[in-house]
Amino acid sequence: MLVFVLNAGSSSLKYQLINAKTAELKASGLVERIGIDGILKHEVGENKKLTFELPIPTHKEAIELVLRILTNDETKVINSIKEIQAIGHRVVHGGEFFKESTIVTKDVIEKIEQLVPLAPLHNPANIMGIKICQELMPNIPNVTVFDTAFHQTMTKENYLYAVPYADYTEHHLRKYGFHGTSHYYVSNETIKILNKKDSKIIVCHLGNGSSVCAVRDGKSISTSMGLTPLEGLIMGTRSGDIDAGVIPYLMEKKNLTSNQILDYLNKKSGILGISGISSDLREVIKASKDGDMRSKITIEMLCNRIKKYLCSYAGLMGGVDAICFTAGIGENSDLIREKVCHGLEFMGIELDVERNRVRELGNREISKKDSKTKIYIIPTNEELVIAKDTYNLVKSK
Amino acid sequence: MLVFVLNAGSSSLKYQLINAKTAELKASGLVERIGIDGILKHEVGENKKLTFELPIPTHKEAIELVLRILTNDETKVINSIKEIQAIGHRVVHGGEFFKESTIVTKDVIEKIEQLVPLAPLHNPANIMGIKICQELMPNIPNVTVFDTAFHQTMTKENYLYAVPYADYTEHHLRKYGFHGTSHYYVSNETIKILNKKDSKIIVCHLGNGSSVCAVRDGKSISTSMGLTPLEGLIMGTRSGDIDAGVIPYLMEKKNLTSNQILDYLNKKSGILGISGISSDLREVIKASKDGDMRSKITIEMLCNRIKKYLCSYAGLMGGVDAICFTAGIGENSDLIREKVCHGLEFMGIELDVERNRVRELGNREISKKDSKTKIYIIPTNEELVIAKDTYNLVKSK
Repeated sequence: MLVFVLNAGSSSLKYQLINAKTAELKASGLVERIGIDGILKHEVGENKKLTFELPIPTHKEAIELVLRILTNDETKVINSIKEIQAIGHRVVHGGEFFKESTIVTKDVIEKIEQLVPLAPLHNPANIMGIKICQELMPNIPNVTVFDTAFHQTMTKENYLYAVPYADYTEHHLRKYGFHGTSHYYVSNETIKILNKKDSKIIVCHLGNGSSVCAVRDGKSISTSMGLTPLEGLIMGTRSGDIDAGVIPYLMEKKNLTSNQILDYLNKKSGILGISGISSDLREVIKASKDGDMRSKITIEMLCNRIKKYLCSYAGLMGGVDAICFTAGIGENSDLIREKVCHGLEFMGIELDVERNRVRELGNREISKKDSKTKIYIIPTNEELVIAKDTYNLVKSK
Repeated sequence: MLVFVLNAGSSSLKYQLINAKTAELKASGLVERIGIDGILKHEVGENKKLTFELPIPTHKEAIELVLRILTNDETKVINSIKEIQAIGHRVVHGGEFFKESTIVTKDVIEKIEQLVPLAPLHNPANIMGIKICQELMPNIPNVTVFDTAFHQTMTKENYLYAVPYADYTEHHLRKYGFHGTSHYYVSNETIKILNKKDSKIIVCHLGNGSSVCAVRDGKSISTSMGLTPLEGLIMGTRSGDIDAGVIPYLMEKKNLTSNQILDYLNKKSGILGISGISSDLREVIKASKDGDMRSKITIEMLCNRIKKYLCSYAGLMGGVDAICFTAGIGENSDLIREKVCHGLEFMGIELDVERNRVRELGNREISKKDSKTKIYIIPTNEELVIAKDTYNLVKSK
């Protein structure tokens, strides 16, 4: 079954066409700068890469363009849109409504709309993506896969904040966590490798956005992102954990509103803010090697924060069977993995420094042979989870 | 040498009269509700406890009253104020100016005043205490002992937040940490017990305000409180760590200013907020034993948070030689200590559950005989540190 997987952002659109049964990726791409000017990067297979620069005023034109490319002579991978049997949408916030993926109905869209205050940047774009697909492909079923759903297994002591309880019951204030699809995929792959039912796994999803997740027996029990994706690790432009007292302090010092400070903590902080070089860790690692002091500090801070969560989740679970690194930084930076694992031998975590440095594709073990805790690199594949969830829901309908 | 130790709060005053050389406590007490009505609780030795209820309009009257009681017939411990040879003041915020205790000069007071924006509730009261003493006892030297000073050994990667670097250089935005005098005292006592120079110690100061500190070779390398005392552990009425995104979210939901939300996170949250019962953990433990669900969750959350810091600091130091519990909850709650240490055997932390339950005075070990990490209860004594620092500075002048 061919599934069209869609991730609609406020001015961007990521897509993949996947055979959900065989996991074969037919084509993928990214549309950016929608409403500004417009650029589309399309890939078919390993070698065929195309870039189109043309005005793309709205998401509707973007999706129309993608569908045209998928069926067009030169770039054809399907003969007709009708070959697409279902559409899977990534939706950022499912709140407490959605504990798993679901087929889109009017009620589902209404609930996603109700959750806009919890994800003001993401949910509106996600809804737009769904509505455009319903309009352009009226007979094809849509499925939503939520970034928060995997973490809905957390229990109260792990998702509540230490604020008056009524803020939870009345205002839905709690930890939700994000990157759930990735944490699910990676922990699930790891369970298969471990071949162990009662498992304690920690997933470090380190990309431009980053989070850590403690997974016990296949279920998320705690994660570093919270009510919003600001909490937790130090990210490209996000501060991660910070004294809440910083907001009023900076509001006064910089004469900004609380929303402006929040924007500042989300978009100007993190790796970019400390280093002053870039939000791209590769640039910062390069500068650090050239002796830049602030870049060195950035890397230390970033790794300390990951280590902090790693150790605290090991403590929470009373030990850890496997640690997994995934996403851009997690899969590609041996330096970060090495620094994170350094000094944790006392708790049974022993990285094989040589194996860690070998660049390979696919799932692989990088711990020492007799390390009590296994360490893996597991390339994430959120789109495949979305395609499979979509397939399973549509098939059983 | 007799040292008068003073801790002036906004409407309260704690004091002790100590022989700094022998550590003998001559008298101690607490004045509360200054400017409201006034109550003074005075203690001499183990048995003599006096309570006075009378109007105490300002801190000046409060200090005058205390000095009168110390020299008055019935409650006399000294013949004349002149026997007081120095006054030691607890000051909450020393910023980056003060890395150790110092004799009060005009310049010192000016610097403490400059730090008021960082401790708007505490530093003004502390300055007031100093000025009144200078007025009432003009010939007696004053010494300031800072709550932040011990943490000034932290390095940049441990005290910076992941925000633009200029916020640190221009606005002094960084982690300062508090409870430094207690963390110093407890870690120093532990170093004496361990009789080990290269030591890795974690101090859990658990009182109405709480913080954890990682102490390597006698120096604070990281601590859970931050720019303000809001960050870190769950406390009586403080939330501790929370997604900064919560502030704008609650501002909108509750139609409050950011300072009102901050006040709310400082005064209505924490143990009080989740349990809805009390900010006093003893009440919440009692309610939990009676089956109250929210109290049970409160205790789990509190202990998980402490465990999280404990494990992350062990990770940061590459292991831990000793864990110390101190302050009201740390010294008295076997339940909290047991829950915090539970499940950490995999990293060499083994509590002796029986020894943990024995109620005794003084420093004591509560770990199993062959636990790799020692666990201690070390009753804190901040006043003694203040008295000794004061004595040493005045003596050498």
